[in-house]
Amino acid sequence: MAHPILTLTTDFGSADHYAGTMKGVILGICPEARIVDISHEITPYEIPEAAYTVAQAYSFFPTRTVHIVVVDPGVGTARRPILVEAAGQYFVGPDNGVFTMVCSREAHKVRAISNEGLFRQPVSATFHGRDIFAPVAARLAAGMSPPHVGDFVQDYLRLNFEKAVRTGKRTWNGTILKIDRFGNIITNLRRSEFADLEHRNCSLAIGPYHIGVFASNYQQTAAGELFLIYGSGGYLEVSCSQASAAKVIGCEVGAPVELTIW
Amino acid sequence: MAHPILTLTTDFGSADHYAGTMKGVILGICPEARIVDISHEITPYEIPEAAYTVAQAYSFFPTRTVHIVVVDPGVGTARRPILVEAAGQYFVGPDNGVFTMVCSREAHKVRAISNEGLFRQPVSATFHGRDIFAPVAARLAAGMSPPHVGDFVQDYLRLNFEKAVRTGKRTWNGTILKIDRFGNIITNLRRSEFADLEHRNCSLAIGPYHIGVFASNYQQTAAGELFLIYGSGGYLEVSCSQASAAKVIGCEVGAPVELTIW
Amino acid sequence: MAHPILTLTTDFGSADHYAGTMKGVILGICPEARIVDISHEITPYEIPEAAYTVAQAYSFFPTRTVHIVVVDPGVGTARRPILVEAAGQYFVGPDNGVFTMVCSREAHKVRAISNEGLFRQPVSATFHGRDIFAPVAARLAAGMSPPHVGDFVQDYLRLNFEKAVRTGKRTWNGTILKIDRFGNIITNLRRSEFADLEHRNCSLAIGPYHIGVFASNYQQTAAGELFLIYGSGGYLEVSCSQASAAKVIGCEVGAPVELTIW
Repeated sequence: MAHPILTLTTDFGSADHYAGTMKGVILGICPEARIVDISHEITPYEIPEAAYTVAQAYSFFPTRTVHIVVVDPGVGTARRPILVEAAGQYFVGPDNGVFTMVCSREAHKVRAISNEGLFRQPVSATFHGRDIFAPVAARLAAGMSPPHVGDFVQDYLRLNFEKAVRTGKRTWNGTILKIDRFGNIITNLRRSEFADLEHRNCSLAIGPYHIGVFASNYQQTAAGELFLIYGSGGYLEVSCSQASAAKVIGCEVGAPVELTIW
Repeated sequence: MAHPILTLTTDFGSADHYAGTMKGVILGICPEARIVDISHEITPYEIPEAAYTVAQAYSFFPTRTVHIVVVDPGVGTARRPILVEAAGQYFVGPDNGVFTMVCSREAHKVRAISNEGLFRQPVSATFHGRDIFAPVAARLAAGMSPPHVGDFVQDYLRLNFEKAVRTGKRTWNGTILKIDRFGNIITNLRRSEFADLEHRNCSLAIGPYHIGVFASNYQQTAAGELFLIYGSGGYLEVSCSQASAAKVIGCEVGAPVELTIW
Repeated sequence: MAHPILTLTTDFGSADHYAGTMKGVILGICPEARIVDISHEITPYEIPEAAYTVAQAYSFFPTRTVHIVVVDPGVGTARRPILVEAAGQYFVGPDNGVFTMVCSREAHKVRAISNEGLFRQPVSATFHGRDIFAPVAARLAAGMSPPHVGDFVQDYLRLNFEKAVRTGKRTWNGTILKIDRFGNIITNLRRSEFADLEHRNCSLAIGPYHIGVFASNYQQTAAGELFLIYGSGGYLEVSCSQASAAKVIGCEVGAPVELTIW
């Protein structure tokens, strides 16, 4: 491991010392580590948003990258720490569904992290990012082989938030997975499942809006017009030229959308 | 110094070029440096919050780490730059109390940084982070020995914001030191001073609230219930399951709390 | 290139996976890279703010640093990617004016980036930061010579937002270039053009305010008083002791200012 890479995806925000403290623990164990922040601004406790965010980023990292995800409302309870091996990379975090979207994309194996000898002692009840996830991930980055963390498990948690539900001959119900900084609304409708919409007669309903215009870049339409676009992550998105689509529509993460294709 | 580490704790925010500019200066002097952001979101000019934040993080970093703290309302005035040596690490910043909590935890020695040959010239009146603290810290990270910065001093500033005041046989007055992203209220009541509260009959008053329930993790109580918990930093905190305790109570940093133990 | 450095200046924010994903691409190509965030909080689509921010930071980085700027409302359209060589450093981004202030300070050469063999394929319509700018910049950081990206061009875009306009014998019109985290108002009036104002009789008008007091640090005046100061970036700024000058005045980026010198 000449240049081990670790990434962090958390809901810790950037105002507190939490992420920095994890980095201190990591560098103490793996001094060569390159640490990359994916995001510390996951909405607190929003497991689907964390699952989406790490799933959008991991495939652009080199083999053997170790991704730590700490969105962990159950910290201190019986939920297990796990290690997911997928795509030649490692994913370390709580067994609460945060790796659902990685697992739906990649062949994977999951281990329960049970070797307490790898943890910082004493393990606090409230900060497993520092005491469990960081030291385990840093040891993996430094070359420790996965069997040291614990045995394979089959009963890890997978959530179901990226499946559109067919509700009629021409209609599918979906949901808003994420709203990004620009106000782009990212739905859970995958391009791989709903291809070529730009060449078909379709409409996406969000609240009182029905959006039927398709664009292939952000400047194809008039300022202020809502349009559909396949985003860089492979999902159908709703955007608005030079404005926030989410503000125009007034919608939030988790709200329903309905796609109709004629 | 195979892998020198520097950390940054500032009130610069992340929207401006200030922190990035300091990193350029550091990497120009110490190209091997690993730079870790502890926080750039300290409330502007809030020295106690900066003192708390760096004190929460430093002990998780390896020996010889150099911590830079720039919360510096007196920049450009006569207040001195100082170097604190403590816990085998270095702390560089203004002599305004930002290292108070490090000094209260660790044996320490303090030097006034007087060697202007170490500074970027000309030294601006408004950005000592770039012109003084970054170059001095980078040289320390690159191996310069502390005596090069200047002589020991005894009259450095220590503030008094982490002491609870006994006000009666059963009561202590404290204060809110920090409110974190999750709305956890971190008081200045230290676990080491107030141990075993979970096994005693006690109550913490904040505003109109009296909180007497103690939990050992964030999911032990019903959603929305306020409870006491020893946080990962060793202070008594007030939390609220699945909600922001600070919003529920409506309190701010600096507000008083009163602990009663029967 | 023992220690190649890349910097990032974007309007991606820090909540989304965009910046992290770019870093994965960079580290995959140039594993030794040190990546420094200048800012991801540029106001969306605000090209002048991006131009100002990178221009404030670059000169503090070592020779051969590669600066990536992605504030790119025209992503997916015909606007070209460009490479600017200036001050012994590289600047990679869209040809939309983001390097205007670098070019006004330094002798420079500009190339259109036309070698599609350097891009990630397929190139998305919406995320050239990941697919074009990151891989090209990483290859430059890893030692690729500039001619590989494409030929010199002369018709690159330069915007005109840092020139004061003389409007009378004693008056100049300028504009607000940036408001920083502390509420300091940074005008486009350069110290090099308007030197020694502190020794002359002058006044800066912003909205209904006329500010004629000059200070050389942030604590020279009474709390709440507005004053003029030469900022660390070489521009005339309006500040307010222990308060946000921008909030006191109620002004925004882009608003006009008028300087009078008697």
